Amino acid sequence: MAYTLILLRHGESEWNAKNLFTGWVDVALTEKGRGEAVRGGEQLKAAGLLPDVVHTSLQRRAINTAAMALDAADRHWIPVKRSWRLNERHYGALQGKDKKQTLAEFGEEQFMTWRRSFDTPPPPLDDSSEFSQADDPRYADLGDERPRTECLKDVIARLLPYWDADITPDLRAGKTVLVAAHGNSLRAIVKHLDGISDEDIAGLNIPTGMPLVYRLDDHLKPTVRGGEYLDPEAAAAAAAAVANQGR
Amino acid sequence: MAYTLILLRHGESEWNAKNLFTGWVDVALTEKGRGEAVRGGEQLKAAGLLPDVVHTSLQRRAINTAAMALDAADRHWIPVKRSWRLNERHYGALQGKDKKQTLAEFGEEQFMTWRRSFDTPPPPLDDSSEFSQADDPRYADLGDERPRTECLKDVIARLLPYWDADITPDLRAGKTVLVAAHGNSLRAIVKHLDGISDEDIAGLNIPTGMPLVYRLDDHLKPTVRGGEYLDPEAAAAAAAAVANQGR
Repeated sequence: MAYTLILLRHGESEWNAKNLFTGWVDVALTEKGRGEAVRGGEQLKAAGLLPDVVHTSLQRRAINTAAMALDAADRHWIPVKRSWRLNERHYGALQGKDKKQTLAEFGEEQFMTWRRSFDTPPPPLDDSSEFSQADDPRYADLGDERPRTECLKDVIARLLPYWDADITPDLRAGKTVLVAAHGNSLRAIVKHLDGISDEDIAGLNIPTGMPLVYRLDDHLKPTVRGGEYLDPEAAAAAAAAVANQGR
Repeated sequence: MAYTLILLRHGESEWNAKNLFTGWVDVALTEKGRGEAVRGGEQLKAAGLLPDVVHTSLQRRAINTAAMALDAADRHWIPVKRSWRLNERHYGALQGKDKKQTLAEFGEEQFMTWRRSFDTPPPPLDDSSEFSQADDPRYADLGDERPRTECLKDVIARLLPYWDADITPDLRAGKTVLVAAHGNSLRAIVKHLDGISDEDIAGLNIPTGMPLVYRLDDHLKPTVRGGEYLDPEAAAAAAAAVANQGR
């Protein structure tokens, strides 16, 4: 028995376009981002890869990417599950800041540490900040679990319980599972699946709007390490562009 | 304790615009219909009526109405539940037919019987028809329960088990419940809530894209019969227009 998992990173958001650190700020997709979502869904349909269930974060850009991709794939009617555990990495005090300006202000080393260090989070975001989620009703139940900043290690720690309790049962039930989420929450899943080291995961860039398909064996290990993009050339070009963000 | 239920009929679909009988054919919203959905969501937000959970049919026009309204109300992240039991009435052999042409061909009496009779369904739709759902994967599990035609009585019979098992527990849990559905599935709910007779329900027209709010008492009976529209004047004008469809 082989299981099928499809990962889909949301398309361009308004703050991607403005080159701002976003994290948990709930920005919308741009017109370009909506187009990416639709094309992702069209790719799934053309490949006959039809999700039976979708898991999303609680963030608009992933929710709408999932909705538009599934609509384009004629799978808008499948069950939907959402969790804050699939959210983007919380970017702490960097949320709302310009990436280029942050690079200029703090220098290459600090900038890259905040962006790519496995276990060093940015300074925490104050609850009084306009970019805080302290008063957001969707996170009201989290209490002390609600992050004020996160490194990738933190993302993995809060994501894996959802992977184990909610996603793998759907896979084990033989369902084709779509996870529509974010650069860092998807990186956490890929690290777990492919057994990527804490050092190497920083170099992995998942392109937006391009379905990444994993076939998993009985132990939920990938039959092809790294999975397969439906359009590998476009994915490689897009990943390279992501790696250069903020330059 | 008062419970809050919000009913929302999907906005204009492509086949509403073309004046065709739609039923279970899965047509998309028009641009106008998408605008109605957004305005419905804006009304909810302005009124501070914030859904905690949404129930939709398995049909694109209701699913997308829910998604767009909730996005406009900043409630896109709430849990979503879907069921075929909230689908529009199956229009049998009329699906895909022009309403005006059907009226001319069969005459006023037969036309109004098919549209408004409580217990006389149109002729059943053949599984070989292009407008049949015989090969639709979303209904594959229904087996003999999958309708080939329905009258309103049939809609009530297949909807009430979902009302009892899935919607009322959410209400009893104190959640503000949004049901995004169709003219006849919403009519079935309203008939049940308001205790409308089999004869009188035909005269009830629910306008599209306008949130209809019911406050329910401990017995889940409406505190105001018929519920309340957030914009009563616009709702009355729109309901009158619906009543004249096909003329």
